[in-house]
Amino acid sequence: MSICAFDHPYLGGLLGDEETARFFSVEVEIAAMLAFEKALAGAEASAGLISAEHAERIAEVCSDFRPDVEGLRRGTAKDGVVVPELIKQLRRAIGGEAAQHVHFGATSQDVIDTALMLRLKGICALVQGRLDQLDAAFRRMDESFGCRPLMAHTRMQPAIRITVGDRVRAWAEPLRHHGSSLARLQDNGLALQLGGAAGTLEKLGEKGAVVRAAVAAELGLVDKPQWQSQRNVIVEFGSLLSLISGALGKFGQDVALLAQGGFEIELAGGGGSSAMPHKQNPVAAEVLVSLARFNAAQVAGLHQALVHEQERSGGAWTLEWMILPQMIAATGAALRLALELTGAIVSLGAAES
Amino acid sequence: MSICAFDHPYLGGLLGDEETARFFSVEVEIAAMLAFEKALAGAEASAGLISAEHAERIAEVCSDFRPDVEGLRRGTAKDGVVVPELIKQLRRAIGGEAAQHVHFGATSQDVIDTALMLRLKGICALVQGRLDQLDAAFRRMDESFGCRPLMAHTRMQPAIRITVGDRVRAWAEPLRHHGSSLARLQDNGLALQLGGAAGTLEKLGEKGAVVRAAVAAELGLVDKPQWQSQRNVIVEFGSLLSLISGALGKFGQDVALLAQGGFEIELAGGGGSSAMPHKQNPVAAEVLVSLARFNAAQVAGLHQALVHEQERSGGAWTLEWMILPQMIAATGAALRLALELTGAIVSLGAAES
Amino acid sequence: MSICAFDHPYLGGLLGDEETARFFSVEVEIAAMLAFEKALAGAEASAGLISAEHAERIAEVCSDFRPDVEGLRRGTAKDGVVVPELIKQLRRAIGGEAAQHVHFGATSQDVIDTALMLRLKGICALVQGRLDQLDAAFRRMDESFGCRPLMAHTRMQPAIRITVGDRVRAWAEPLRHHGSSLARLQDNGLALQLGGAAGTLEKLGEKGAVVRAAVAAELGLVDKPQWQSQRNVIVEFGSLLSLISGALGKFGQDVALLAQGGFEIELAGGGGSSAMPHKQNPVAAEVLVSLARFNAAQVAGLHQALVHEQERSGGAWTLEWMILPQMIAATGAALRLALELTGAIVSLGAAES
Amino acid sequence: MSICAFDHPYLGGLLGDEETARFFSVEVEIAAMLAFEKALAGAEASAGLISAEHAERIAEVCSDFRPDVEGLRRGTAKDGVVVPELIKQLRRAIGGEAAQHVHFGATSQDVIDTALMLRLKGICALVQGRLDQLDAAFRRMDESFGCRPLMAHTRMQPAIRITVGDRVRAWAEPLRHHGSSLARLQDNGLALQLGGAAGTLEKLGEKGAVVRAAVAAELGLVDKPQWQSQRNVIVEFGSLLSLISGALGKFGQDVALLAQGGFEIELAGGGGSSAMPHKQNPVAAEVLVSLARFNAAQVAGLHQALVHEQERSGGAWTLEWMILPQMIAATGAALRLALELTGAIVSLGAAES
Repeated sequence: MSICAFDHPYLGGLLGDEETARFFSVEVEIAAMLAFEKALAGAEASAGLISAEHAERIAEVCSDFRPDVEGLRRGTAKDGVVVPELIKQLRRAIGGEAAQHVHFGATSQDVIDTALMLRLKGICALVQGRLDQLDAAFRRMDESFGCRPLMAHTRMQPAIRITVGDRVRAWAEPLRHHGSSLARLQDNGLALQLGGAAGTLEKLGEKGAVVRAAVAAELGLVDKPQWQSQRNVIVEFGSLLSLISGALGKFGQDVALLAQGGFEIELAGGGGSSAMPHKQNPVAAEVLVSLARFNAAQVAGLHQALVHEQERSGGAWTLEWMILPQMIAATGAALRLALELTGAIVSLGAAES
Repeated sequence: MSICAFDHPYLGGLLGDEETARFFSVEVEIAAMLAFEKALAGAEASAGLISAEHAERIAEVCSDFRPDVEGLRRGTAKDGVVVPELIKQLRRAIGGEAAQHVHFGATSQDVIDTALMLRLKGICALVQGRLDQLDAAFRRMDESFGCRPLMAHTRMQPAIRITVGDRVRAWAEPLRHHGSSLARLQDNGLALQLGGAAGTLEKLGEKGAVVRAAVAAELGLVDKPQWQSQRNVIVEFGSLLSLISGALGKFGQDVALLAQGGFEIELAGGGGSSAMPHKQNPVAAEVLVSLARFNAAQVAGLHQALVHEQERSGGAWTLEWMILPQMIAATGAALRLALELTGAIVSLGAAES
Repeated sequence: MSICAFDHPYLGGLLGDEETARFFSVEVEIAAMLAFEKALAGAEASAGLISAEHAERIAEVCSDFRPDVEGLRRGTAKDGVVVPELIKQLRRAIGGEAAQHVHFGATSQDVIDTALMLRLKGICALVQGRLDQLDAAFRRMDESFGCRPLMAHTRMQPAIRITVGDRVRAWAEPLRHHGSSLARLQDNGLALQLGGAAGTLEKLGEKGAVVRAAVAAELGLVDKPQWQSQRNVIVEFGSLLSLISGALGKFGQDVALLAQGGFEIELAGGGGSSAMPHKQNPVAAEVLVSLARFNAAQVAGLHQALVHEQERSGGAWTLEWMILPQMIAATGAALRLALELTGAIVSLGAAES
Repeated sequence: MSICAFDHPYLGGLLGDEETARFFSVEVEIAAMLAFEKALAGAEASAGLISAEHAERIAEVCSDFRPDVEGLRRGTAKDGVVVPELIKQLRRAIGGEAAQHVHFGATSQDVIDTALMLRLKGICALVQGRLDQLDAAFRRMDESFGCRPLMAHTRMQPAIRITVGDRVRAWAEPLRHHGSSLARLQDNGLALQLGGAAGTLEKLGEKGAVVRAAVAAELGLVDKPQWQSQRNVIVEFGSLLSLISGALGKFGQDVALLAQGGFEIELAGGGGSSAMPHKQNPVAAEVLVSLARFNAAQVAGLHQALVHEQERSGGAWTLEWMILPQMIAATGAALRLALELTGAIVSLGAAES
C-alpha cells in the first residue's frame, strides 16, 4: 500500500530514504520495545524486585521474540496502543512464573516513548552524518567556484555582483548551526521514559529511582523523571527537523531559480519530460522546496500536540505518531537529495569577467 | 516499511482503513493511468489523429499491462514523476509503429492529474456512503435516547439540562451539510486534465477540444479546459475532508468528555491498559480528535500548494502528492471509527428524571 | 499599537485595506450587536413575550447607544466575552422595567455570532465586488495582450511558446469559480444564531421558532436552528478566503518571475531600494505571495477550531476570534494589491515575432 | 481599528498584554531604527569612512527625530518597506552634507532586522521574568497543596491516585527548560544584521568587519556576518514561543478539566455568563488553550518563511512581519493569564484522605 509518498513503491524513489525508513520498520520498532523490557527486568532483578532467573528468562525471550503481527494489529485496534497485546504475546512466550514479571511496574507509554527515544538516537547520528557530508560538499563548492562572480538578487530583481562564495555561505551556515543544536539535543534531550501507570512508579516503591537510573544506563539514554505528559523534546526535535529541511528548501529554491536563469549554473542529469525530451528539469531542487513546505506544515500539527491533557492524552499522543515519523522521513529525503544536488552542480557562477 | 501510521502493519489496525487505502495501491493507480492512455488513443483515433489499428493495439496492451515497478521507481527518482518511464515501458510492450502513438499530444501531468480524478470519484462515493450510514446511526441514536435529559456544558461548565436529541443533532447536522457539498464537488468538480506540454494541446491542432470531450466522456469526468496550474479543486476537496474529520473530532471529543464524566454515557468495548486492567479507554473517541487535528494541520500544506507558479510547478505539485492521500486516509479512518463508536454507545443521557 | 501588520500605522499602507478594516471597528461591531438586541426585542414583543413599550424603549436606546469601551475591556477580561458587560451597560441606559427585558432568552454567543454574520454579509459583498473588478481587469489584459507569445515554463524551465491569453486565463478562472462559491455561501450560509443558554431557547417556550424566524427576517439572515457548536460555515468561509488569496498568490508569483526574467513584462511604478536607487521591485507581486502563505497557515488554525466541545467551547471560539478577522483583512489586502498590480502591467508577453 | 484581537479595544482586555505590545509601538520601532543609524554613523566615523562632524550631526538628529508617519505609510505602500522613506525624511532633517552620509553602506534590511533584534532583547527579558514568576508560583502551589491526593487521568479516564505535586511538576518542568533555551538564544542568537545592498558591505571596503563589530558592540548585539537570507534565528525564536504557549496550554486544559470535574480545584473569580449568572467560567484556563493552538498554527507560517530565496526575499520577509509580532503578543498574553490563573487557584487536590 502507498498512501504515504515516502514509502510508495515508485514515488519512494524520489521522496523516500531507505536508511531513514529502516528505523520505522516493525522489526526495529519491536526490537526497541523488547530492549526496554529486557533492561527493565534486569534492573528490577538487580534491585531485588524480581528474581534473577525470571529476569534471565525474560532477557532470553526478548532477545529473539517474533510477535504475531496480525495479533498486534487487532490489539492496537482495540487498545489504541500495541503494548497490551505485545505483552500478552510476550508473556505467552516466556511462560511460567517469569511471565508475570515482565513489564513489571511499567505502562504502555514507557515502552512506546522509550522505544522512540532509542531510535531517535540512531536518527540523530544519521542526520548528523549527512549534515557533515553536506558541509564538506559546500566547502568543495566554495573552493571550486567561490571566487566566481554571481548576480545577487534581492526582491527577485538583479541587485549587484557578489561571489559564488557569498551565496554558498548562506546555504551552509544555517546547517552548521542546526548540526550543533542537534548535538545538544542528542546529548541532553533523549531521555528514558519510565513512570508506570500514572508517572509515580508506585509499584517499585522506594526502588523507583534506582531502577530508572539502571534502565537508562543500560539503554544509553538520559536518566530523568518521567516526562509522559511533557512533550517538548519531541516537538523541539520536530522543529529542528523543519529548520533543517527549510534551510535545504532555500538551497533548492535558489538552485531552481539559477537553473531558470539558465547561464549561472550547470547541472548534470536532471529530469526528463514525457512531452518535451529536450528539457532538463531541476527535479531535486524543486523537491527540496516541497519537502521544506511539507515539514513546515507538519510542525504545526506537532505543536498542537503540546496540549497534552492530564497524565496521558491518547488524542495528543496519537497525533505525534501520525506526524513525527513523516517529518523524519522528509528530512532524511531532503538531506539525501541535497547531497545529490551538490554533486550534480557541474558549474556555478559566471565565467570570470 | 511503516513511516506512515495509516498503513503501518499494526498501527494501521487503529488508524488505517483498507477500503480507502485500496485507491492508493500501485495496481489501482497504474490502472487509472492506463485507462487515460487507452481513452486518449481511442479519442485520437476517432478524430483521425492516429490510426484505428494503433488505437486498438494500445487499448489491448493498456488493458492488462503490468509495469516493472522497480524501473518505475528509478524513473521517478530521475524525472520527478513516474510517467516518462511508464510510457517508455508501455511503448516497449506495445511495440511496432503503434508504440509511437501512445500518449500522443499528452504530458505527464495529464496522466497523473486525470488518474487522481478517476480515483477521487470512487473516494467520493465511499465517503458519501459512510456519511449516509453515519446519518442513519445518529437518527437511531436520537430515536433511542433523544428524549433523555443531558447536562449541557458551556465553557466546560455544567449549564442547564438539554436533551440527548439536542446534542445528537449538533453531531449530525454538519455531516449532512458536508454530504451535500461532497455531492456538488463530485458532480461538477472532477474534471479531465488534458493540456499537453504546456496546456495548449498544440499537437492536436484544431482537434484538441473534440478529443478532450471524447476522453472526458469515456472516463466519466467533467470536460473543461486544462486546469494544470489551477489547483483549487484539489484544495477544496482537502478542505472538505478536514471539515468532515473536524465534525467527527467534535463528536469524539464530546464522547470522551461524557465518558470522563462517567454517568451519562455507557460504551461497549473500549481499550485496555497494560498497567490498569480495570480501565475502559474511549480509544475511538480520542482518535477522532487526533485525526481531526491531523487533517487540520495538513490542510495548511495543501493551501500552500495553491501558489503553483507558471504552467507547472514541480514543487507545489509534489507537495500535493505528500498530503492529499493522507488526508483521504485520515478521513476514511475517521468515518470508520465514528461508525464503530456510534455502534458502541450502549446508553446515552441520564435515566429519565 | 501595532502588533498587527494589517492595521499598523505605516505597514498598513502596504498590508492593510481600509474598506475591509471598517467591518472590525468597535463602532460597527457594537452597532451589529445592538441591531441584534433591537430585533430580538421587537420579535419578542410581536410574540407577546415582552411588552410593546419595552421593545420600543429598547429599540430607542439601541439606535444610538455608545458604550463605555474601557468598561467593556474590563468586562471582557473577566467574562471572556464582551456581552455580559455590554448588556449591563445597556440595561443601565434603558432603565426602568424595560431594562430587564433586553437580551431576554438570549446568550452571549447569540449576540457575538449573529453580529459576525451581519458583518460577513457586507464583507461578502465587498469581496464579490473586487472579484468582479479583477475579472474585468483580466479580460482587458487578455484583449490588450492575449495574442502575444509567452514562453511557457514547466518545472521552472522554459517549455514551449504559449500565448499571454493562456496565462491570463489560468489567473482568472479560479477567481470566477470562487466568486460563485462566495455567492452560494452568502445566500445559504449566513444564518442567525439564536439559541439561548444552551441552544434550546428554553425561556421562549413554544414561541422560540417564531421569534427566531422574525429576528432572522429583520436582520436579513438565513433562519435555521442554533448552530453554536457547529462551526463549519465559519471554517468554510475562511477556507474560501484562503482559496482566493492563494489564487492571487499564484498571480503574484508568476508576475514576480516574469519581472525577474525581465523582458516579457513591463511594470509601472515598483518599489525603490534604500541602497540601489536603480531597482524597481515588484512589491505588490511579492506581497501577494506573502498574503497567500499567511492565509494558508491561518486556515489550519481555523480548522483546529472545529473541535468545538459540548454546547459552547470558550477555547475553540476564542481561537476563531484571533484568526478569522485577519484572514478577512489579508484577503481584502490581496484583492486590493491584485487590482493595483493589474493596473501596473504596462506590457505583457513578447513583441509579435 | 481592531482586526487584531491582541490590541482590540475591548478584546485586548482578555487577549492583549500591554507590556508586550509596547515593543511594537511606532515610537519604539522607529527609535530602534534610529539607534541603528546613529551607531552606524558613529562606527563609520571611527573607521574614517565619514567625518566626525557628520556623525555627530546624524547622532544629534537621530536622538529625537519624529518622522511624518503618514509619509512613512505612503512610502511603505510603494517600496514594500519603510526604510527608504524614513531615510529620505531623516536626510531632510539632518540637512547639509551630513545628510548624504546617514545610512552609508547599509540597506533597508539592515535597519529592519537589527531593529527587530534590539526589541527581541527586551522581549526575551520580559518573557524570562514572567517565566521566573510563574516558576515561583508553581513552587508555592506545590508547597501549599503538593502532598494532597489527586486522581490521575490517562486517556481521559480516572487512573490511580497521584499527588498534586506530581501534576504541578508536569506543569512547571517544561517552562524551566524553555527558560534555559531562551537564555541561550538571548546570549548567542540576537545578532546585528549589517550587509549592505546584497550582504557584501561593498561600500565599506576593507573596513566592513571593523564597522560591523563596532555597531554590534554599541547596540549590545552579537557580531556575526550578515544573515539576511538565513532566517533560522527568527524561526527558532517563534518555535520557542510556541513551546512556551503550548506548555501553558496544557496547564490551562488541565485546569479546565479539573474545574469541570468540580471537586478537586477551587478557583477565585471566573467569568460570568449573560444567560446563567450562577456560572463561574474558567476563562483564563480556556484562553490558554486558545493561545497555544493559535501559536501552533502560526509556527507553520514562520517555518514556511525559511524558503527565503536569493539574497533577500520580499515575500518570505513580509510573511515574518505578519506572524512573529503576533506570536510574541500571544505568548505575552499567555504568560500574563497563566500568572493570573495560578493566583486564582484557591485550592487544589482532594482533602487529605
